[in-house]
Amino acid sequence: MNTLIVYAHPEPRSLNGSLKDLAVATLEKAGHAVRVSDLYAMGWKAAVDAGDFGPSASNPLRVPADSGRAFDTGTLTPDVRAEQEKLLWADTVIFQFPLWWYTMPAILKGWFDRVFTYHFAYGVGEHSDVKYGERFGEGTLAGRRAMLSITVGGRESHYAERGINGPADDLLFPIQHGILYYPGLEVLPPFVLYGADRVIDFPDIAKAWERRLLSLESTEPIAFRRQNYGDYEIPSLELKEGLEPVGRSGFRLHVRP
Amino acid sequence: MNTLIVYAHPEPRSLNGSLKDLAVATLEKAGHAVRVSDLYAMGWKAAVDAGDFGPSASNPLRVPADSGRAFDTGTLTPDVRAEQEKLLWADTVIFQFPLWWYTMPAILKGWFDRVFTYHFAYGVGEHSDVKYGERFGEGTLAGRRAMLSITVGGRESHYAERGINGPADDLLFPIQHGILYYPGLEVLPPFVLYGADRVIDFPDIAKAWERRLLSLESTEPIAFRRQNYGDYEIPSLELKEGLEPVGRSGFRLHVRP
Repeated sequence: MNTLIVYAHPEPRSLNGSLKDLAVATLEKAGHAVRVSDLYAMGWKAAVDAGDFGPSASNPLRVPADSGRAFDTGTLTPDVRAEQEKLLWADTVIFQFPLWWYTMPAILKGWFDRVFTYHFAYGVGEHSDVKYGERFGEGTLAGRRAMLSITVGGRESHYAERGINGPADDLLFPIQHGILYYPGLEVLPPFVLYGADRVIDFPDIAKAWERRLLSLESTEPIAFRRQNYGDYEIPSLELKEGLEPVGRSGFRLHVRP
Repeated sequence: MNTLIVYAHPEPRSLNGSLKDLAVATLEKAGHAVRVSDLYAMGWKAAVDAGDFGPSASNPLRVPADSGRAFDTGTLTPDVRAEQEKLLWADTVIFQFPLWWYTMPAILKGWFDRVFTYHFAYGVGEHSDVKYGERFGEGTLAGRRAMLSITVGGRESHYAERGINGPADDLLFPIQHGILYYPGLEVLPPFVLYGADRVIDFPDIAKAWERRLLSLESTEPIAFRRQNYGDYEIPSLELKEGLEPVGRSGFRLHVRP
């Protein structure tokens, strides 16, 4: 198994840093190849701008078109090209980060904004009467798997079905479905540590994390619905009536029963 | 009315740039004071790191504690202090940005990550048997209003109740509730332009945007539930049974019927 770990925390001696180190050690010991993108250590540039597209940038700048042209002509910046190459090398991608303001840190969002370019992660495949591009179940990264490993400051009950922050699965839907599943990655259930700012029994956490890491290949992904296989009207992309269990709504419509 | 516009797009001649310019002109013409934080023009630093906390940074770095100490001692960096001052000056805050990968661009996430420090935006107020800090209806920014103005590449039906991306209100919940309502801002319904990558009838859009801008003071905010006023168990912060209309679930539990 080729595993890419994309890691976003400013402090190497943090809980996130320890989980990343443990993942590298555990997977390598089990015979897997591991590469790490340590975004803070790399000084990752977070903001998309004209500098990303070199001579391909138009004036005025048009981010989707310009990123697609730079991708097609191989003129994206070397940092972005390197990350795209790592994604194509990997068959499993782990994202290790703290949940800040209910989503990923800016430096990691900037990794997606810059690496997931047009023609690489979106704007892939044909549009027709039966197909609306290759995405949500198809796409450049199809056949690969991804998993979030996150630390959360609050208590687990705050992220429960009736918790004030909203259910964790719903908070993570825009990332797991909207970002990861979009270009074809199958998404494994996340590894979530609550109460991360309080006292932590690290040996117990380490054991649970090792178990998840060593069962990555046999873990069933979240059963998100595929876009082009009959569940959705095209081009409105609304779920056809009657496919969901009674009472299910919102994001949960897009997971197969 | 004192309005702060936080604007995140790399191209001044973009649709987002035009909407920002129109907001400034419309509000100033109506006699309001307007300040703009143009994050790209400011070269806004997106990534939280030890440099944000100057002499207050601990080793190893602990982001919440260190940001709170730097806030308390007035040693946050000048760029962050300036944004906190603008927020305290404003009674209305507009966020103008394109939806990239179902959420805000990295540079804007980095504005929240760095400006919304401990003791300013979170970690405010006492914890007791009846109160779990001042947040979700109370907090430093209580009494002020916020509104998202966003452009979206996809079609409106893709963001409808059964749309493949999930309903827009749910996609925006982690921002509108989790980030804006958390420190006390009342959140007005968003201004959302779909199909922004396709042909646009800008005069019609401009008229709709002007109408929203000129009615900001009379628009009803989204009726998010307040945390400390009896709707939630403390400290589990789960919504008490029976408060919601039959069949409502997920994020929608946290809006009053």
